[in-house]
Amino acid sequence: MGNHVSEKNKLFRKENEDRARLLIKCPDQPGIVAAVSSFLRDNGANIIESSQYSANPEGGNFFIRMEFECPGLRGKRTLLETAFSDIAQQFNMEYDFLYVTDIKKTAIFVSKEPHCLMELLWEWQNGELIMDIECIISNYEDSREAVESLGIPFYYIPANKDIRKQVEAQQLEILKKHNIELIILARYMQILTPEFVSHYPNQIINIHHSFLPAFIGARPYERAYERGVKLIGATSHYVTNDLDEGPIIEQGVERVNHRDKVVDLKRIGRQIERSVLARAVKWHLQDRVIVDGNKTIVF
Amino acid sequence: MGNHVSEKNKLFRKENEDRARLLIKCPDQPGIVAAVSSFLRDNGANIIESSQYSANPEGGNFFIRMEFECPGLRGKRTLLETAFSDIAQQFNMEYDFLYVTDIKKTAIFVSKEPHCLMELLWEWQNGELIMDIECIISNYEDSREAVESLGIPFYYIPANKDIRKQVEAQQLEILKKHNIELIILARYMQILTPEFVSHYPNQIINIHHSFLPAFIGARPYERAYERGVKLIGATSHYVTNDLDEGPIIEQGVERVNHRDKVVDLKRIGRQIERSVLARAVKWHLQDRVIVDGNKTIVF
Amino acid sequence: MGNHVSEKNKLFRKENEDRARLLIKCPDQPGIVAAVSSFLRDNGANIIESSQYSANPEGGNFFIRMEFECPGLRGKRTLLETAFSDIAQQFNMEYDFLYVTDIKKTAIFVSKEPHCLMELLWEWQNGELIMDIECIISNYEDSREAVESLGIPFYYIPANKDIRKQVEAQQLEILKKHNIELIILARYMQILTPEFVSHYPNQIINIHHSFLPAFIGARPYERAYERGVKLIGATSHYVTNDLDEGPIIEQGVERVNHRDKVVDLKRIGRQIERSVLARAVKWHLQDRVIVDGNKTIVF
Amino acid sequence: MGNHVSEKNKLFRKENEDRARLLIKCPDQPGIVAAVSSFLRDNGANIIESSQYSANPEGGNFFIRMEFECPGLRGKRTLLETAFSDIAQQFNMEYDFLYVTDIKKTAIFVSKEPHCLMELLWEWQNGELIMDIECIISNYEDSREAVESLGIPFYYIPANKDIRKQVEAQQLEILKKHNIELIILARYMQILTPEFVSHYPNQIINIHHSFLPAFIGARPYERAYERGVKLIGATSHYVTNDLDEGPIIEQGVERVNHRDKVVDLKRIGRQIERSVLARAVKWHLQDRVIVDGNKTIVF
Repeated sequence: MGNHVSEKNKLFRKENEDRARLLIKCPDQPGIVAAVSSFLRDNGANIIESSQYSANPEGGNFFIRMEFECPGLRGKRTLLETAFSDIAQQFNMEYDFLYVTDIKKTAIFVSKEPHCLMELLWEWQNGELIMDIECIISNYEDSREAVESLGIPFYYIPANKDIRKQVEAQQLEILKKHNIELIILARYMQILTPEFVSHYPNQIINIHHSFLPAFIGARPYERAYERGVKLIGATSHYVTNDLDEGPIIEQGVERVNHRDKVVDLKRIGRQIERSVLARAVKWHLQDRVIVDGNKTIVF
Repeated sequence: MGNHVSEKNKLFRKENEDRARLLIKCPDQPGIVAAVSSFLRDNGANIIESSQYSANPEGGNFFIRMEFECPGLRGKRTLLETAFSDIAQQFNMEYDFLYVTDIKKTAIFVSKEPHCLMELLWEWQNGELIMDIECIISNYEDSREAVESLGIPFYYIPANKDIRKQVEAQQLEILKKHNIELIILARYMQILTPEFVSHYPNQIINIHHSFLPAFIGARPYERAYERGVKLIGATSHYVTNDLDEGPIIEQGVERVNHRDKVVDLKRIGRQIERSVLARAVKWHLQDRVIVDGNKTIVF
Repeated sequence: MGNHVSEKNKLFRKENEDRARLLIKCPDQPGIVAAVSSFLRDNGANIIESSQYSANPEGGNFFIRMEFECPGLRGKRTLLETAFSDIAQQFNMEYDFLYVTDIKKTAIFVSKEPHCLMELLWEWQNGELIMDIECIISNYEDSREAVESLGIPFYYIPANKDIRKQVEAQQLEILKKHNIELIILARYMQILTPEFVSHYPNQIINIHHSFLPAFIGARPYERAYERGVKLIGATSHYVTNDLDEGPIIEQGVERVNHRDKVVDLKRIGRQIERSVLARAVKWHLQDRVIVDGNKTIVF
Repeated sequence: MGNHVSEKNKLFRKENEDRARLLIKCPDQPGIVAAVSSFLRDNGANIIESSQYSANPEGGNFFIRMEFECPGLRGKRTLLETAFSDIAQQFNMEYDFLYVTDIKKTAIFVSKEPHCLMELLWEWQNGELIMDIECIISNYEDSREAVESLGIPFYYIPANKDIRKQVEAQQLEILKKHNIELIILARYMQILTPEFVSHYPNQIINIHHSFLPAFIGARPYERAYERGVKLIGATSHYVTNDLDEGPIIEQGVERVNHRDKVVDLKRIGRQIERSVLARAVKWHLQDRVIVDGNKTIVF
């Protein structure tokens, strides 16, 4: 199965070897689109998809994501990036060239509940989530068999709040070894320290099992039940130092009623969690998500 | 138009003169349904619709709503109610016979934003909301014309937190005069005192412009914007002494994105508010909502 | 894993050994609920859940589903059923006692696309779908490994329209051998003959990859793309002799837009298909679905 | 109220006097975005919003909608349009400059059911639908009072299929007199002839009360009821010569169940119809809808 995915990703790389994305953030002013699109044209690139957003036409930031096709891209990367620095300076841009063939090296963290991990593995095998899953890290052994059967390394690191420091040290070592670029917390029920988070800014995606900002923190389904809500939800967000306060990428809800006990809310919630997390990860992998302060722009 | 609705309600009364609902709450035990349904059969009533709910089959409360048709009902009301008291005592029931022709006398409170009021008036004219709208009370004059053109009394009572006591005294007087049984807060932006609320337990329905318990209190759209949520919502609930903490009847959400400013959230939210409030009111008018502690059962 | 499910189902049987459902269809008349609920009470059964529906209060059919708990049920089955025949005769009832511990023996048919099969296996392992999966039948070998790893027999029977008769003969033999009570067509892309269907009336559940009655028949996603619809859907229904015309159990939709090619519609559609089919199967397994002519009542 | 809207539209015109939209369709090739955005920059325009779509990057059509702000726009219209013709010729473009202050002159057709008309009038008064409603045409007198109270001319033209020709002649005369640019069929239950439609290509928006292509033609709710569907819908589309076959702009659905009779489907459907039509009209008014063959691109 793992081989099967490698084959798919190989094919994907081949089909997309000339494909890249340019993400830009800069103060809004006339002429940005003209400058960038002329640059791409002059360098032989064809714009395939383009989305832009002005936070505030009178004096805010401007954001743009352009996906383009450029024959012979591999050999022209340095050239392109160097040539673009002039425009970037002129418009005071923060920017990033992202090459579609640079498939993101990903680690998935999971605790006991496997449904989010399973959804990610499933969509990865289907070719819906284009990523290289380098490893799974868990504080439980439960998922080992399913993970290893796909040829993915599984690391069991028991964790609790008393040994947080040494646990994170172990985890960081593994992440470094695998050159991880994206960490997905697929119902990993341990809090990460600011120190850990600081190594991966806007690179850790969490799924919280409530419709944030309702029911921040522990036991959201129990609290939703107590409150008697008529809809429950899930939220996928980037992890920052503030618990469940990071930039939201995606949310979903489902209807519940008075007959639904906590166990039913959890069951219904699992379906929301897995689809919300899968969408958020997909958008991140396609470089569609730009963090702007404590919010996201999803192009 | 007002006459038009009177005609409709008159017809409705005629068509439903033999129709009633029996709502029961009691400790769960075997034999309740048998006792109640046998009672109805023996009194010549046919059960049209029945919904029941056991909070916890092992030792919780049991709730049932039966809608029945009983020829000659008007003349048999006292008889029925008296005869039922035996069963009620045996099973330790709280219960209510509600006659469909006793259309609920309703007052609507509104402030500046008219969309929820307009939706209620519209669905009332359509025959979707069967109620007698006795009066509209507002702290603004804006809706007077639309209301009076339908032949409904409009009371303008300026309000602010410094004169709350005398305002509520005036309002209570009007409500008593009209024998009001249901108060709908259709975006009425003043807080009601516990004293006021105590006169109408589980008879005041509010629409809060957020997905509770997220964004309790003031300026929910502004706060939703600040937080960068991807869905916004509205919540209809019974008013209790705790602000926005009463039993939830219905909730709804819509998708938003990074392009939506506060003004857009408000616009999208208006659609959610009006449909959520209209559904909650409809269920209340049909005696489908039972308050159980701080939750609702919606049959 | 298979063992794991057997354990779960064993536990489920133990917890539900006193639980049954009584499904009734009869001409509407006063006294039915009283008669049935008195019968249950007199036989020591406590009604846990009850739903009823009058197709037309003035002279149509009446349907009721009662779930009840009856201590010592196993020993009382024959007694109950015999005793009930009097009431059944009096009210001219069609009825069924369904014992929750009689877990339905199920066969799943699948062709090349595995997503619906995978969802069913997954929810079965989770304990969401309480059924005994006796076998998988496929006209492709693709799913063999995943199926056999769960300890489920996998039968590969190549099929095409020229050999339909012998294929179905083989399938029927397998189904008989396994005493199959429910057949799920989880994207099985062969048409079944009326002869085959006649063996399993209202016992074959199909998932059609469109929002029926739109796009009946082949290639629905291609046709949805051609038509430029803004929502796509899936439909789960019982199989009858008329292609895609059987009683609908459940439907779902998702939003699409002009950017979505056929391949995107298929991808989005897969998510709808798997959740719609899983819901329909769940309701069937819980005896919540009553077929009434060409429609279903879902209690 | 009519005056009230005139005031709003006057203010809107003032705020948007420098705002326009450029819509382009042309064969896809590199350099289009660069050429158009450079042109706008060189003419002092700032791009506020931009959406593009390649039907097929290898050899299909390319579509783009740019909304821009250009100081002193009123005096520069001819200049801009003339200057652009060079680029248009070079890239073989079909294009349109649309000035936001050219508020579209609109006629609404309605028969007996008023809910869609009411929603449009309501959202127009709210400032959500920026259009000049020049007249309402109806084959019933029912809506006259509501329409005239807003200061909008109401034309009563009885219609049936036998007098279709003279009816349409009358209607066309009125439409010409008012220089109508958009016709909204807000549940107008008469079929329009190809001759009539030919005067307003892609300028007539209809609401059909089903989820097309299901239930094309008459009595869709009755047929949905007969079929036993679990979701009902509505579709807004441009009118072409083929009944209910024109390019779809927007669709919506709601859940129904076995308890819902035809009258309930109609009631639930009314809510879908009014919101779906209002969204479609809004997008048309904002020049977001491009017709591409028998489909729409909605930017």
